Amino acid sequence: MNNRIAIEKKVLSANDRLAAAIRAKLEEQRILSLNLVSSPGSGKTSLLERTLGALNSTLRIAVIAGDVQTENDANRLVKAGGRLVRPIVTGGACHLDAAMVTRALDQLDFGHIDLLFIENVGNLVCPSSYDLGEDMKVALISTTEGDDKPLKYPAMFRRSSVLVINKTDLVGLSDFDVPRARDNALTINGKLRIFEISCRSGDGLQAWYEWLIEQAAIKKGRPS
Amino acid sequence: MNNRIAIEKKVLSANDRLAAAIRAKLEEQRILSLNLVSSPGSGKTSLLERTLGALNSTLRIAVIAGDVQTENDANRLVKAGGRLVRPIVTGGACHLDAAMVTRALDQLDFGHIDLLFIENVGNLVCPSSYDLGEDMKVALISTTEGDDKPLKYPAMFRRSSVLVINKTDLVGLSDFDVPRARDNALTINGKLRIFEISCRSGDGLQAWYEWLIEQAAIKKGRPS
Repeated sequence: MNNRIAIEKKVLSANDRLAAAIRAKLEEQRILSLNLVSSPGSGKTSLLERTLGALNSTLRIAVIAGDVQTENDANRLVKAGGRLVRPIVTGGACHLDAAMVTRALDQLDFGHIDLLFIENVGNLVCPSSYDLGEDMKVALISTTEGDDKPLKYPAMFRRSSVLVINKTDLVGLSDFDVPRARDNALTINGKLRIFEISCRSGDGLQAWYEWLIEQAAIKKGRPS
Repeated sequence: MNNRIAIEKKVLSANDRLAAAIRAKLEEQRILSLNLVSSPGSGKTSLLERTLGALNSTLRIAVIAGDVQTENDANRLVKAGGRLVRPIVTGGACHLDAAMVTRALDQLDFGHIDLLFIENVGNLVCPSSYDLGEDMKVALISTTEGDDKPLKYPAMFRRSSVLVINKTDLVGLSDFDVPRARDNALTINGKLRIFEISCRSGDGLQAWYEWLIEQAAIKKGRPS
């Protein structure tokens, strides 16, 4: 098994080099980049649909949408008004890596982007190990999952800067307890910025939009 | 990268040998074994809690409960009446493998088991590649996820024999369409046996229990 670990280390360090190159490019263009990570079905695509709908005239938004199979998410995002959407079909891989993101970015005109979302494969484990050159990881959980997810999958929440708790419209229909979920997440990572939202009802999204505008402005060197 | 693929093949073939040994042991004791796979939060543990509650006096049920961190699920199952529950904490690994299951099985008395559940790590990708010596994989999706999950994560649904659609009490509160989910799943794997259930309301569980009793009897060589 030592051989396997050595190979994994090699893969990760090759990934880190590519991620550093992505980060340098995005830094040069002052593009805010967010890597969205969650279980399948927590609402990454729904959050992006809402965000495109609300901010398309305020920010120039690009999305790289990863999935194991299908371009369903990318198609949804184009329908939602996305002008710069690139799908990545991993064809089996359980996470995006920096090489895939490099290839997708090569098809985008960096001069026309303020904010880049990278929608990772739905998976709470593997994507946590792969730096994609992003500024921050944004983890989503939804109120129809267990509120102990941060404890069960700690690496993902430790490496994220932001936690979005989605589907607050369904609170009360399951045993999910929002304060307990917050506590569990903050136990793993006390620095998490937490948003409580419902992509269905729209509740809480305004704070998310304002935060995105603020962060993009800071990145551009023009604090809002 | 060829080196990486060679190593992965080696790991998988080592896993297959261990899985074959598990299968032979379970076969000898005529124990029905089901490997539960799903996204985090689809309801694997809830389904097991319900099943233990309903069938504990009918079948001798053992559960091996895997998680990346915490023994929360195993503790829940003991509370639900589970007498033979063994946790596996993978400590980072995104799936169970046959070596972990072998170690957990070593702690169980095979002579006292009719039905073995293996609750895998919540992950729709990686667990599909690892045979654990089970009779069947049982995939769960819930109505709060997207109904296109079978298309996006086809390997998991192709390698499963059973699909459980959980949280039917929440139908109508999201865009999830049950007939569309069934169609998508059957497109990937026309042989799937599908159950529609709600662990919360109890709807549909009777058919699941009857199926388990029947399958365990067939395995024992005493068709019910």
